[in-house]
Amino acid sequence: MTITLTAFERSPDRGRGLARDMRVRWALEEVGQPYDVRLLSFAAMKDPAHLALHPFGQIPTYQEDDLVLFESGAIILHVATRYPGLLPDEGNARARAIGWMFAALNTVEPPIVERGMASIVESDAPWYAARLPMLDERVRGRLSQLSARLGDADWLDGAFSAGDLLMVTVLRRLSASTLLNDYPNLGAYIARGEARPAYQRAFADQRAVFTRAAGAN
Amino acid sequence: MTITLTAFERSPDRGRGLARDMRVRWALEEVGQPYDVRLLSFAAMKDPAHLALHPFGQIPTYQEDDLVLFESGAIILHVATRYPGLLPDEGNARARAIGWMFAALNTVEPPIVERGMASIVESDAPWYAARLPMLDERVRGRLSQLSARLGDADWLDGAFSAGDLLMVTVLRRLSASTLLNDYPNLGAYIARGEARPAYQRAFADQRAVFTRAAGAN
Repeated sequence: MTITLTAFERSPDRGRGLARDMRVRWALEEVGQPYDVRLLSFAAMKDPAHLALHPFGQIPTYQEDDLVLFESGAIILHVATRYPGLLPDEGNARARAIGWMFAALNTVEPPIVERGMASIVESDAPWYAARLPMLDERVRGRLSQLSARLGDADWLDGAFSAGDLLMVTVLRRLSASTLLNDYPNLGAYIARGEARPAYQRAFADQRAVFTRAAGAN
Repeated sequence: MTITLTAFERSPDRGRGLARDMRVRWALEEVGQPYDVRLLSFAAMKDPAHLALHPFGQIPTYQEDDLVLFESGAIILHVATRYPGLLPDEGNARARAIGWMFAALNTVEPPIVERGMASIVESDAPWYAARLPMLDERVRGRLSQLSARLGDADWLDGAFSAGDLLMVTVLRRLSASTLLNDYPNLGAYIARGEARPAYQRAFADQRAVFTRAAGAN
């Protein structure tokens, strides 16, 4: 059985590991499963051939024999269900870890993406400066609540899980801002994630794609 | 075993079934599991007692013996894993149905919530009219892609699943706008969801909370 992911041929994050293939690479490294990567240009992502795999024309996709999945959360949950290492065995702990996966993607990530999109698409608009404090405040609200829950624990609920993996990748999207500065326990949490050998292998692999593409310029 | 949900004492949607307890009620009706509801004021949602259950101070929460869950997607996945009726048995079909749950919450819902929040929080701002076409376009992009994938099928991938349940509740958030008018197959899809007896029981129950609260005024 071969696992094949899709990823950006030239990631807009310039190899900082913020694209959503990074999460899936990390998960596969945690469970020790090899995978192939098929790189896509932005144009190819809107081709009918890719839309047949991913109706929203994004990356990553996951192919494993005749199974095709999209949505990084769903892919990681599938990997975590199939291979040990990313979810607790005990039923209640497992349900709570999956809860943190949804919290990362549906509660913490949306205000971070909204703020990030505004800084890309609307930074020249006359209202950008007036709206930014509101966007920051929405992110800060979530960070405060997350920081309070994490406290001085290493991970969100017991041992490292797919919920932590997703939360760390979501929080890393703020690394170019100063918003995390007020939450040292979240900074240390991200650093713990980044220190994992599986993270480092995944990061190096996605970075090599950018470096090769830049070298080909 | 008793299942207890939390929900708004006075839902800001005035009983239209747009609050996130509706999704969980519907899922529990689909699998035939009775449940209790504990109603919370907005003030009580920020109390330490509630934050201990839900670190982000929202509804719904789900309690079942000593298991506490938050995040509507995680709750529904737990219900769908524990009781038959919301996910296919076959492994690949099951993974794809879970994929649609994540797609509903992480790809389709965020631009809908962003547009809805702007209409609540920023409708008096001088930039509201200038930004609205951009917000509409983001929603339309997702609706076009979803409409193309659904085609003339009844449900997104074979039989009705928790993925459809979540997608229908996400799309219903647009019912006060005209954005769905260009996608008749999505309108019919929502109507098929709303016609299910389990949906109707759940809708009536959440509406009764609003009617009682209004009568108590």
